[in-house]
Amino acid sequence: MSDINGKIVTKVITLFIKDSLRKNGFKRAVIGVSGGIDSAVVLELTVRAIGSDNVLALLMPYRSSSSESLSHGKLICEKTGVDFKTVDISPSVDSYFSRFPTEDKMLIGNKCARERMSVLYDFSAREKALVVGTSNKSEMLIGYSTIYGDSAAALLPIGDLYKTEVFDLAKYLDIPGEIVEKSPSADLWKDQTDEGEIGMTYSELDEILSALFDGRESKQALVKRGFSESKVEKIWKMVINSQFKRTLPPVTKIHYRTIGLDFRYPRDWNR
Amino acid sequence: MSDINGKIVTKVITLFIKDSLRKNGFKRAVIGVSGGIDSAVVLELTVRAIGSDNVLALLMPYRSSSSESLSHGKLICEKTGVDFKTVDISPSVDSYFSRFPTEDKMLIGNKCARERMSVLYDFSAREKALVVGTSNKSEMLIGYSTIYGDSAAALLPIGDLYKTEVFDLAKYLDIPGEIVEKSPSADLWKDQTDEGEIGMTYSELDEILSALFDGRESKQALVKRGFSESKVEKIWKMVINSQFKRTLPPVTKIHYRTIGLDFRYPRDWNR
Repeated sequence: MSDINGKIVTKVITLFIKDSLRKNGFKRAVIGVSGGIDSAVVLELTVRAIGSDNVLALLMPYRSSSSESLSHGKLICEKTGVDFKTVDISPSVDSYFSRFPTEDKMLIGNKCARERMSVLYDFSAREKALVVGTSNKSEMLIGYSTIYGDSAAALLPIGDLYKTEVFDLAKYLDIPGEIVEKSPSADLWKDQTDEGEIGMTYSELDEILSALFDGRESKQALVKRGFSESKVEKIWKMVINSQFKRTLPPVTKIHYRTIGLDFRYPRDWNR
Repeated sequence: MSDINGKIVTKVITLFIKDSLRKNGFKRAVIGVSGGIDSAVVLELTVRAIGSDNVLALLMPYRSSSSESLSHGKLICEKTGVDFKTVDISPSVDSYFSRFPTEDKMLIGNKCARERMSVLYDFSAREKALVVGTSNKSEMLIGYSTIYGDSAAALLPIGDLYKTEVFDLAKYLDIPGEIVEKSPSADLWKDQTDEGEIGMTYSELDEILSALFDGRESKQALVKRGFSESKVEKIWKMVINSQFKRTLPPVTKIHYRTIGLDFRYPRDWNR
């Protein structure tokens, strides 16, 4: 993988954010800020694009979230000078799980991600602010996300940046060291780390993803180049198995033009 | 608009449901049943496709939902012989609005739609059952739906059928008269009807939608044929303004292959 050029990438993304708001007829943005690096970078880029007065950040902790996440979230909000609100999602989420109890962390994490989406869209309507999403390319490709949860947004400014590139961009953007240096985590339980769950480092993951999908190299070619066959195979399967998260729900074809299939107007049709 | 052939459409849709389940590696389906005609038709079609033992229906009333909706929901569940559960979404939804009060029915309706999606996906994971959506083509085209709410599903079996065609199909499928004959309603408040809110009948709406989008006729041609210019213009605007609900969130392009743009593997890649 080659290094990204912070200056050019920042320019491309900030123009994209400005253009998306204009096309959608919005002047303001709302962003869920977790305390992690992705949302910190997206917040900083959005502020550079449209100014801090036009950005609202929502901090949405669940009762099991670490207090460090919340304090890092506040730190980046204060640094960028945006208005922020804290919305504790525990009462809504727990009122569901009190009736349908579970110990399954995946179920709890998914419910939390969807509740955060729902809160963001509620504020989007109240504040006439577009929901700016924070998903990166690594997590979107392997499906390390909740469908209709954290990946649900009106635009995805860093959705084509691998996680390792988000780190590079964060340094270029002067994101506070505490946020950049900690291990990435979905923060669903204590000491959870993305890399622990995925079973390899982001550096390994991104090299393989980039070669397979942007480089269009074959799995065999990667193994010949020295990558572990089991890791390459594991990643390939994760990408295939999560393709449903990257496409629209299929519609049974009946008429001439079917939504999602051959009803092919662009999103910014007539803007 | 021409009439649909109930027998052929039923065959096409039931095959589509079976095929979608197989490709996704699921044997079971979960469906949100509102008491209205769309979900009754989808429930009946899914039962014909995979058998009532493999279908779970969720009735998810909010405290303002009419009791008729719930009783019609139970009626179609009993007719089709599926297992059903009632999940009152009021505690979760109200625990949010108690902190962020609103009188805006749109905000409440959207929050309810997203809570229902979240409950459906929670049961999807618990029961290893695919979420079968109930959106029809008329509402999807004019955007009469909540993004990441009622239109969020793993497949949309009637997403290419206009509402008037759903009525025809309901009669072919012997859906109980009480459900077919009442006025369609999102049931957000008392005496709400879709047609009252949209400002025209489904019959007018569907004729215009079908001519514009499946027939590829111009707005001018429709007006010449005798349609009201203001209605044609109103529909055209509703379709354009809701295109964001029918497309994936745009990603800033950085690399060779960008998700949603030129990362063009099919959803059923490798199945």
